[in-house]
Amino acid sequence: MSATKQILDLNRFDASNTSGMPPELTERVARRQATFGAASVLFYEQPIEMVRGEGAFLFDSNGKRYLDVYNNVPSVGHCHPHVVAAITRQAGTLNTNTRYLVRIVETYAERLLASFPAPLGNLVMTCTGSEANDVALRIAENVTNARGFIVTNSAYHGNTTAVAHISPSSFKSQISAPHVRTVPAPDPRNAPGGDIGTQFAAQIQAAINDLRASGHGFAGFFADSIFSSDGIFSAPAGFLQQAAAVVRQSGGLFVADEVQPGFGRTGGGMWGFARHDIVPDIVTLGKPMGNGFPMGGVVTSPDYLTAFTRETSYFNTFGGNPVAAAAGLAVLDVIAEENLIANAAQTGGSLKDGLTALKSEFNQIGDVRGAGLFIGLDFNNPANGTPDSAMAGHVINAMKQQGILIGAAGLYGHTLKIRPPLCFNTGHAEMFLETLRKILVAAK
Amino acid sequence: MSATKQILDLNRFDASNTSGMPPELTERVARRQATFGAASVLFYEQPIEMVRGEGAFLFDSNGKRYLDVYNNVPSVGHCHPHVVAAITRQAGTLNTNTRYLVRIVETYAERLLASFPAPLGNLVMTCTGSEANDVALRIAENVTNARGFIVTNSAYHGNTTAVAHISPSSFKSQISAPHVRTVPAPDPRNAPGGDIGTQFAAQIQAAINDLRASGHGFAGFFADSIFSSDGIFSAPAGFLQQAAAVVRQSGGLFVADEVQPGFGRTGGGMWGFARHDIVPDIVTLGKPMGNGFPMGGVVTSPDYLTAFTRETSYFNTFGGNPVAAAAGLAVLDVIAEENLIANAAQTGGSLKDGLTALKSEFNQIGDVRGAGLFIGLDFNNPANGTPDSAMAGHVINAMKQQGILIGAAGLYGHTLKIRPPLCFNTGHAEMFLETLRKILVAAK
Repeated sequence: MSATKQILDLNRFDASNTSGMPPELTERVARRQATFGAASVLFYEQPIEMVRGEGAFLFDSNGKRYLDVYNNVPSVGHCHPHVVAAITRQAGTLNTNTRYLVRIVETYAERLLASFPAPLGNLVMTCTGSEANDVALRIAENVTNARGFIVTNSAYHGNTTAVAHISPSSFKSQISAPHVRTVPAPDPRNAPGGDIGTQFAAQIQAAINDLRASGHGFAGFFADSIFSSDGIFSAPAGFLQQAAAVVRQSGGLFVADEVQPGFGRTGGGMWGFARHDIVPDIVTLGKPMGNGFPMGGVVTSPDYLTAFTRETSYFNTFGGNPVAAAAGLAVLDVIAEENLIANAAQTGGSLKDGLTALKSEFNQIGDVRGAGLFIGLDFNNPANGTPDSAMAGHVINAMKQQGILIGAAGLYGHTLKIRPPLCFNTGHAEMFLETLRKILVAAK
Repeated sequence: MSATKQILDLNRFDASNTSGMPPELTERVARRQATFGAASVLFYEQPIEMVRGEGAFLFDSNGKRYLDVYNNVPSVGHCHPHVVAAITRQAGTLNTNTRYLVRIVETYAERLLASFPAPLGNLVMTCTGSEANDVALRIAENVTNARGFIVTNSAYHGNTTAVAHISPSSFKSQISAPHVRTVPAPDPRNAPGGDIGTQFAAQIQAAINDLRASGHGFAGFFADSIFSSDGIFSAPAGFLQQAAAVVRQSGGLFVADEVQPGFGRTGGGMWGFARHDIVPDIVTLGKPMGNGFPMGGVVTSPDYLTAFTRETSYFNTFGGNPVAAAAGLAVLDVIAEENLIANAAQTGGSLKDGLTALKSEFNQIGDVRGAGLFIGLDFNNPANGTPDSAMAGHVINAMKQQGILIGAAGLYGHTLKIRPPLCFNTGHAEMFLETLRKILVAAK
């Protein structure tokens, strides 16, 4: 079993082991397994049946409340009334496709594009982040006339056939496609002198050279600037500049996958790439874009989009429908009105401080890092400092018992992925810190 | 310019020609072009700004009403109140992913799967028909350990990188991928003795032999049973049985793309494949599934799904979210409660009779064919019987003037694609017939 497989399975329900489950839950799980079959993916040793969401909380069928420190899709808060009202209004008025003009669609495109630097002036609306990254692949291939791509070694960019090839973490065994090269996650602890920018750029350059030598050429580098599935590597801000320079010098495109860091999560502006003071060639959007309404997008320059459409007539039936535009506009409204970017910086900052304090108290915590409301916390074996995914698994299930939802990430699955809705406040952060402390005390 | 390119451009707005457009429309179009760039696809010489939809009608910004004979996504009617209420209720209660149990998701999966014959017992929920066909490709590759696929020569199955390869109509030039073979659309007029079943199966067999000889092997045959983008070929019911037999004998999978014929449109049951009395290996779903809410699905056997998940952890963040399930359930409710399958058969039948009567009156009409509320009408040059795409273009724009939305299909773009919402009634059919008659009289 590869390290990657461990992450995927760490918090996954095992349908072959239902012992100790209450009969009603057993029946509920059986219905899911009967219909979803082998593709069913449920969390936890005993899955949770959810019935309601509100703000930073989810509620299960027994009335138990869970503080959500996992879900980044309902980014402005579960069932935010402003978003629900926008969806309701538009769904009852008009829902059609972009072959007609619809005012709210153009308004949304303008509002969204205003948050991007030049020359990122065009938007392709899709339904998912996977579809967005699939389009980005095709744009990069068309612009560069090359096929080779580079990603980090636990990257996840989505689930289409083409995007799965650049998502090593989605394969259970470590098969990699011939046209894809991987580089290690940018962990400053592994860089000589801590200069991760130089090391990361050198690794990318080596991968570019290898792609060229093998005849694939170099089309582009995909990265989410928070390196979410790699285990969250955000520092120092700016370290991606050298990588971007190397990519450009080699004629490839820098694709910023903002599905994870985008829409304010890192607290350093609307987009994760802004923290690094770079302008990508293509930006892809997804998860938090509609607070759960299925939508994604690709932002790029008019020239690159023109290259893409030269041979292909791309049309996305549901992409850019007016209900998606309404949901997306409402999300932009709430981010602005509720100061969610500043909140991500402030609440995220105090949460990270609290976790860093816990690190000095508990030697199972190996590292705390992150930006805004995206924080990674490593569990290491105190004896030898090796990754302790068992401890991460224990904490995840103990947190569930205590009414907190949390997940893991990283090559070894030993990193707690702390990624709550952006309406997370200091009270929520305190609740999380106290519970984590109790669990760590009990585990001593 | 290829024939396929003609279809794509037949009814496409040309941004380089805005002469004669009212100033407000010019400004509206400019906003769209500025944001969507080269990927903007608008209908008509002068695009329409839509503001409202209800039942079988759309309304533009001037208050003009259009009878919708084009859009199959709002299949149970634009803004159907039962669907809107379901979306509103669920969006305000809980919207999350399938890693948790959510009762409405399992209920939907059970209701939907109950409409499929054995062994089609498992469902993968996606966000679009494209994503569904992308998953179907991967299932077929995993099951057969082969890469070669066969489709019809104007097929359209979606927009991901992989699915575009099996969608010849999406490329502006006729490039085909090395692992894809195309067969002619099953037009009985071109078959010796009218036996299209035998001819079509023989063409598929030849393509299978060719794929094997070239080393790709044979993974599967994709077809929508109404052959929508090929120009609508539905008769005789049952002709696909020989094709299915040939595909199975060769170890490939028969993939029924129900994005177009599914959810009752053909009037011969819930699924288009049922008209042919075949059981596909994989069925893919999309457009009408949520009446505009972005959702798609893959239905297959538990064994095939198990083969797919052996190497890949497939997860779709928005796929199977509770709001999609609510929308999908409401669609199934309305289809049953409003007898929409029977209506498709009855209204579609009388509409086809009316069009056949027009054919005997106007020699520009070369053929009328179809099933239920999916009818194709060819315009041919009366002098020599050749396809007349200019006449189709004229009728489409004249219909727009008269307040009717309609599009074209087929290899030569000379086929009117008559595909209204399923709430289309005999009054709507009369309106369409009278308007078409007036346009044909005027064109004489």
